[in-house]
Amino acid sequence: MDVPIRHWSSLTLAEQDALLARPALRDPQERRAAVRAIIERVRREGDLAVRELTERHDGVRLEDLRVDEAEIAAAERALPPAALAAIDLAIANVRRYHQAQPSGDYAVVTFPGIRCERISHPIDAVGLYVPAGSAPLPSTAIMLAVPAALAGCPRRVLCTPPRRDGRADPAVLVAAARTGIREICKIGGAQAIAAMAYGTESVPRVDRIFGPGNAWVTAAKSEIAADPAAASIDMAAGPSELLVIADATAAPAFVAADLLSQAEHGADSQVLLVTTDERLARQVLAALAAQLVQLPRRAIAAQALEHARVIVVEDLDAAAEVSNRYAPEHLSVQTAAPRALLPQLRNAGSIFLGPWSPETAGDYASGTNHVLPTYGQARSVSGLGVDHFRRRMSVQELSEDGLRAIADTLQALAGLEGLEAHAQAVRIRVGDRAAASSSR
Amino acid sequence: MDVPIRHWSSLTLAEQDALLARPALRDPQERRAAVRAIIERVRREGDLAVRELTERHDGVRLEDLRVDEAEIAAAERALPPAALAAIDLAIANVRRYHQAQPSGDYAVVTFPGIRCERISHPIDAVGLYVPAGSAPLPSTAIMLAVPAALAGCPRRVLCTPPRRDGRADPAVLVAAARTGIREICKIGGAQAIAAMAYGTESVPRVDRIFGPGNAWVTAAKSEIAADPAAASIDMAAGPSELLVIADATAAPAFVAADLLSQAEHGADSQVLLVTTDERLARQVLAALAAQLVQLPRRAIAAQALEHARVIVVEDLDAAAEVSNRYAPEHLSVQTAAPRALLPQLRNAGSIFLGPWSPETAGDYASGTNHVLPTYGQARSVSGLGVDHFRRRMSVQELSEDGLRAIADTLQALAGLEGLEAHAQAVRIRVGDRAAASSSR
Repeated sequence: MDVPIRHWSSLTLAEQDALLARPALRDPQERRAAVRAIIERVRREGDLAVRELTERHDGVRLEDLRVDEAEIAAAERALPPAALAAIDLAIANVRRYHQAQPSGDYAVVTFPGIRCERISHPIDAVGLYVPAGSAPLPSTAIMLAVPAALAGCPRRVLCTPPRRDGRADPAVLVAAARTGIREICKIGGAQAIAAMAYGTESVPRVDRIFGPGNAWVTAAKSEIAADPAAASIDMAAGPSELLVIADATAAPAFVAADLLSQAEHGADSQVLLVTTDERLARQVLAALAAQLVQLPRRAIAAQALEHARVIVVEDLDAAAEVSNRYAPEHLSVQTAAPRALLPQLRNAGSIFLGPWSPETAGDYASGTNHVLPTYGQARSVSGLGVDHFRRRMSVQELSEDGLRAIADTLQALAGLEGLEAHAQAVRIRVGDRAAASSSR
Repeated sequence: MDVPIRHWSSLTLAEQDALLARPALRDPQERRAAVRAIIERVRREGDLAVRELTERHDGVRLEDLRVDEAEIAAAERALPPAALAAIDLAIANVRRYHQAQPSGDYAVVTFPGIRCERISHPIDAVGLYVPAGSAPLPSTAIMLAVPAALAGCPRRVLCTPPRRDGRADPAVLVAAARTGIREICKIGGAQAIAAMAYGTESVPRVDRIFGPGNAWVTAAKSEIAADPAAASIDMAAGPSELLVIADATAAPAFVAADLLSQAEHGADSQVLLVTTDERLARQVLAALAAQLVQLPRRAIAAQALEHARVIVVEDLDAAAEVSNRYAPEHLSVQTAAPRALLPQLRNAGSIFLGPWSPETAGDYASGTNHVLPTYGQARSVSGLGVDHFRRRMSVQELSEDGLRAIADTLQALAGLEGLEAHAQAVRIRVGDRAAASSSR
């Protein structure tokens, strides 16, 4: 545990930037080429390719890629009652948060005789990817499937990697079944993304693909996002992150536990502590060292802590500035008056206010979505919501008078752009300006 | 004019798919490599690279890449009063439509003691790309700058290619100035996207890049979208499209004029007529031929018409099905009761109802946005709105009782996922389950 304590105000702008720079993502070009090859194979060969790739990467040969009713029933029986109750409560809270999201539909008369509307519909077919590598993630099944169901998407397909025994993780299956998913495929990695983007014999082609994943999944999503003929994607997922803003009133053990809960996600996770109090910083580091050794995933967490940052700032304004420049996925505020700082916090995926709001609550069951922008994308990208599962259309309806009233405007703009056929589509309806004025 | 009339119900599913397939986009891999090289040069060399690329691609050497006050004043003087009035009316209508868009912020108590909120902020810095290749597009400046201003984005940078005389298109400048843009750079193509994504001496680095463009611009946007450390993008823009649904009551000359207004955009534009009336189809084709010869851009339109489609369907239900399967950018409904069909129309960027709503109206001044999903992306992607210029964060605040109430749930889910540090962040606050029940 050798995280240096840095003093923000003593750093130059360039040093500050360097301190907040994310670790570089490795081998992007090489991995992209490999992922392109997987995608091409799945497109060409369908299930045949998926089965072979599954055998190679997941170590199991599957004849039937789909999960059947019997496997779901077995999963229900395999889970203890406390686990089932936990899944149900998480679903209920996530549903309550998401069903409050407004549709955003509206209508407005922009000009006499011109009525414009925005209306939304559920996306016809969505694909949900639930990772199950070093940790199977039933919570992710909930975070994807609940908004998909609330949005009303008629077709919801879920892919998750099989275990070596050929079954899917039972908690993932139960979470999926209880959130109304009827089509589940045991496929992981880039091959799952390719199968949902282009369709195979077993996997329906979907219009949009959702969910986090490892570097292979992320690279595959990025590839298909570049193909306009394929499915679109929710967002690019990177390594997970937590930034904690704390003052002298924070409990060092709470802060340390929160940083570790993020660090255990993966060796590439990043955690940052930004504090007004150097003494607290030292106490948190001591608590971190003490708690770390007790963790089953301490090797992973220790690797993640190698690129942890501890930054001492002069006041909470400076803390907010550091956080906004870093733009963390998760932001925890453990100060005397956390809500007072909220108006200054601009760039974050999800914010956790106060000592009783550990990141764990948002990961599982406060109700908010845990699919969030990473790697600084919180500057411009929003966490997942029901909106992402719907698609908006604009509608305009002009009366004859409405069109006549803006006909000169339309023709003048068409003239500025040199698009004569655009002008002609107006003139053929209302006559040209001279004709219009003489006939009136 | 040799567009065959096809009868939908006589086609197999595979033939229907083939008929609705978009023309393939050319040389994507080759162009991507060239675009990657441009992006790398701009990242490494900044303005120096931008100046050289501008000289090569736009045929002009610019010392100052930024537009100054004098150039904007000259642009205002260069435009006739009718053009200025048209720009102002378009801005007013676009503003009226967009400012009615709800923020979508809300708060909800998901469980006693657990308050969750969604709050939104403007994106700090946005980059707007306005093409000016075969046609300079002041209307696009309006469509990008109005929602950016309404969203409240503090920094709004606009890039548009210079003409050979070193000036930017005056109508683009006036539209930009009148929608509150203060930073305008004369840079086009992939180099403009790279400059805004990574920043140069003259161009500020932005968080998100918006706007349509040619294949080079699209490829550059797709490249930077794959780099999580770069700006995000609004959407991938492809060739423009219009599908018209018409019945026997439609005016053939109107329909033909609308199809041509779309066809003149570019040789790769696609137009489709779906009609219940074969006689109307023949009349539209005759009107198309007669109107085409009068157009200044008839060579471009004629090329676009080579991949036009005319499809006769049995009834309007089938017409809606064809449209939903194609998912057009623009959808015009010229039938006896256009609004009656609206509930069946699911996949489209923007819909134009009735004979007095030419696509030209939406391109310029009905108020709706003309930056819309193309190439079938309307199945899952929405046209541009104020939302795209804001970013949402979720917030949760738990009371001690709130955390205690879901503590078992959180620990059970952490247990299912094998994430012990997640459980520990809860336990360290509320004690373990046994301790909690014995102490109460």
